Amino acid sequence: MDIKSYIAEKGKKAKEAGRRLATISATIKDNALLAMADALEREIDRLRAENQKDLEAAGKKSLSPALIDRLTLNEKRIKEMAEGLREVVALPDPVGEITRMWKRPNGMRVGRIRVPIGVIGIIYESRPNVTADSAALCIKSGNSVFLRGGSEAIHSNKVIAEVLMEAGLKAGLPEGAITMVDIVDREAVMEMLRLDRYIDLIIPRGGEELIKTVTANSTIPVIKHDRGLCHTYVDEYADIKMAQEICFNAKVQRPGTCNAMETMLVHRNIAPGFLPGMVVKLREAGVELRGCPRVVSIDPSIRLATEGDWNTEYLDLILNIKIVEDMDEALRHIEAYGSQHSEAIVTNNHQRAMLFLKEVDAAAVFVNASTRLHDGGQFGLGAEIGISTTRIHARGPMGLEELTSTRFIILGNGQLRS
Amino acid sequence: MDIKSYIAEKGKKAKEAGRRLATISATIKDNALLAMADALEREIDRLRAENQKDLEAAGKKSLSPALIDRLTLNEKRIKEMAEGLREVVALPDPVGEITRMWKRPNGMRVGRIRVPIGVIGIIYESRPNVTADSAALCIKSGNSVFLRGGSEAIHSNKVIAEVLMEAGLKAGLPEGAITMVDIVDREAVMEMLRLDRYIDLIIPRGGEELIKTVTANSTIPVIKHDRGLCHTYVDEYADIKMAQEICFNAKVQRPGTCNAMETMLVHRNIAPGFLPGMVVKLREAGVELRGCPRVVSIDPSIRLATEGDWNTEYLDLILNIKIVEDMDEALRHIEAYGSQHSEAIVTNNHQRAMLFLKEVDAAAVFVNASTRLHDGGQFGLGAEIGISTTRIHARGPMGLEELTSTRFIILGNGQLRS
Repeated sequence: MDIKSYIAEKGKKAKEAGRRLATISATIKDNALLAMADALEREIDRLRAENQKDLEAAGKKSLSPALIDRLTLNEKRIKEMAEGLREVVALPDPVGEITRMWKRPNGMRVGRIRVPIGVIGIIYESRPNVTADSAALCIKSGNSVFLRGGSEAIHSNKVIAEVLMEAGLKAGLPEGAITMVDIVDREAVMEMLRLDRYIDLIIPRGGEELIKTVTANSTIPVIKHDRGLCHTYVDEYADIKMAQEICFNAKVQRPGTCNAMETMLVHRNIAPGFLPGMVVKLREAGVELRGCPRVVSIDPSIRLATEGDWNTEYLDLILNIKIVEDMDEALRHIEAYGSQHSEAIVTNNHQRAMLFLKEVDAAAVFVNASTRLHDGGQFGLGAEIGISTTRIHARGPMGLEELTSTRFIILGNGQLRS
Repeated sequence: MDIKSYIAEKGKKAKEAGRRLATISATIKDNALLAMADALEREIDRLRAENQKDLEAAGKKSLSPALIDRLTLNEKRIKEMAEGLREVVALPDPVGEITRMWKRPNGMRVGRIRVPIGVIGIIYESRPNVTADSAALCIKSGNSVFLRGGSEAIHSNKVIAEVLMEAGLKAGLPEGAITMVDIVDREAVMEMLRLDRYIDLIIPRGGEELIKTVTANSTIPVIKHDRGLCHTYVDEYADIKMAQEICFNAKVQRPGTCNAMETMLVHRNIAPGFLPGMVVKLREAGVELRGCPRVVSIDPSIRLATEGDWNTEYLDLILNIKIVEDMDEALRHIEAYGSQHSEAIVTNNHQRAMLFLKEVDAAAVFVNASTRLHDGGQFGLGAEIGISTTRIHARGPMGLEELTSTRFIILGNGQLRS
C-alpha cells in the first residue's frame, strides 16, 4: 500500500473511533486507562527490548548523550509513565459538562455543552513518554489520537502504542482509538497534515523547524507549542529578597524548559540594592551573565549582551540582564523581544502590578511568582499536553478541558424563526 | 511597491493597532462605533457613488440579477449598516472579564482573563455590508481587522472602510484599526494568508471554493464558515402539528441560508399521519420534493431522490424526504450526510430527545425547534461574524466572546517551583 492510502486508511479508522469515544462513559475510559497503566508495568521487558533497538541506532548515529538519555526507557521511567496514566484517571471527565444554559424571550433554552474535538494529531520529537501521556489525555477527553513520533524513537513509540492499545481494546475502547504512524518517511507527515477530512486538530511538539514545517503544510487547524523567551521585571517597589528568590528560581531551577527566564529587567532605582547580591547568587549556580552597557559599567566582569542575545531562548544557564529607566522601558522591551509565553513582574506596588497584567501580552502573566510555575499541574488543571502559544482556542497549558470544545444545545417547544 | 511589501506593510500597522486596541477603554470603542454609524448615514451620497462603479462593472460582466441585488447599496441598506453598528455598541465589552479565578495550595491565585485575539483577517465575497459588520465586531472585541472583500464590490468596500476609518480616527482609534486590501490581484490574498507574523486568525466567508483555497494556503489559523446540510428528524412520538410547523419553517422561511433544512427524516410510524398534510403545505409554498423509494411509493408524484440529492445543500425551495425504520436509521443518515451544522429532532419522548442531543455531532442540536434559529441573535449572543463549522475555538455562532480568547494571570507572594 502506498503512503497516501496507508495514512488515509488509518485516519478513517481514527475518525470512526473518535465518534465512538465521544459518547463512551467515563467509567469505560477510566478502566481502560488503568488497564493500560498496568500493561505498561507488566510489559517492562518487552518495552525495554524495543527501546534497545532505538538506543543502538542512536549509538550508531552518534547522537549526543543528552538525546540518548531522553530516549532511554528504564524501569523507573516506565513506572512513571504508568503513574502518569493513573493521574489522568483521577481527573474529572470534561465531556458532557453543560457550561452554561439560559432562556430566551421566546421560551427556548440555549446551552453550551462540552464535547470532544474528534481526532487529535500529535507530531512530536524524541521522548517516548509523550506517546503515553498524549494518548491518555486524548482518550480521557473523548478524542482519538493520531500520533507521529520522531524516527529516532520509532521502535519505542510503536511498542508503547501497541501495549496501550492491546489493553485498551480489552477494556472496551474502539479500534483506532490510538494510532501510531510507524512509517519513517517524511511523506507520511505530509499526508497526515493534509488529512483534514479525518483529523480535526494538529499539535506539534518540538523544535522551531518542526513547528515551521507543520504550520506551512497543514490544512488542519494547528495549535502550536512554540518557544518561550520569558522575562522577569524587578520593579523599583519590589521586595529585594523575594525578587532574588523568584529570579533565581526562574533561571536556575530547570533552565532547559520553555518557561525559564532568559532576560531579567531591573528598575534603575532598585539595581544598587538588588543586583550585586543577585549576581553572586547566579554565579554560584554557574549562570553565565550578559548585560546592557549600564550593567557592564557597574560590573565589568559581565559580558556585553548583543542584539542577538536579547532575542535568544538559551534553554541553558545563561542570562541577559538589563537595567531600565522606568517600567515603560521594561514593557517595551518585553513587547519587542518576548515570545508571549510567560512574563513576570516583582513589585509591591498595586498599580504597577495591575498595569503589568493589563499591558503584557503573554499566555501567562505573573505577579510576584516564578515563570517556572507556568504549567498545567501547577495551575491545578491536571496533566497537560503542552503549553499553547497559539492565540485562539487555548493559550497556555492545554489540559483535558482544552482538548474539548463546546457545541450548542437548544430545548424548545415548537419555536420558529419569524 | 510590490504586493508582498504592500501587504506586509499593512499587516505591520494592523498589528500595532491591535496592540493598542487591546487595552483601549470600552467608552472609546463605543464612541468610535457610534461616530462610524453617523458617518455612514452622513456619507450616503459618497457611498452610493462608489457603489455605482461596482454596479456598472457588474452590469458589463452580466452578473445575475440576484448577485447585483446583493451588491447594491441603497439608502435603506446603508441605514441598516449604521443600525448594525449601533447594535454592537449596545452589547457588553467582552475584554477584561475574569472568567474564573481560583487559589492553589501554595497560596497563589490563578485566573483566566478574556483578551482580544489580535489581528483578525476576514476574506469574504459579495455583500458590502460585511465590511461594516465585521469591522464593528472586531473593534468592539479589541481586535484590529484586516479585510479582503470580493473584487466585484471593491469600490463599495473601499469607501465603506474609508468612511469608517475617518470617523474612527477622529474618535481616537489607532491608525490601522481597519485595513481594507484594495488590490484585486489574487496574489494579495495569498500574501495575506502567509502573514502569520501579523495576522492571528483568518475567517473566510463565502463559497466552498474560497474556503478550500484559504484552508489549503493559510499558515494562519483558520475558522471556517462552511456549508450547512441540515436535517430535521420527525420522531414517532412527535406532536404532528408542531412537527409540521417546525419543518415548514426550517425549509421555507429563508431557504437560501446555511441553517435551512435540506432533508426531512420521518419515522415510519408517524409518516401516515404526518406526511400527507406536510406535503400539501410544502407544495403550496412551491417546494419541490424528492423522496426515498418508500416516500415515492406512497406519493408517486414525488421524484425519486438520487444519492447526490442526499448530499446536496440546495439553498433553495427543494427538499429531500426519507422515511426511516427507526431512530437509529435517522442518526446514521445524519452521520453519513450531515455537515455538522444544525440538526433537529421533533419528539415528545424525553429519552429520544436526550439521545439525539448526545449522539448527534453538530455545532447546534435542536429539540422541538426550527434549525433556522441557529443564529447569534436568536441565541442571545448579539451580532455574529458568522457560524463556525470548525471544531476548535468556537463552534456555531461567532459573536464578540468568540472573537476573544483567554490568558492566565497569576497573583503570588513569592511562589517558586520546587
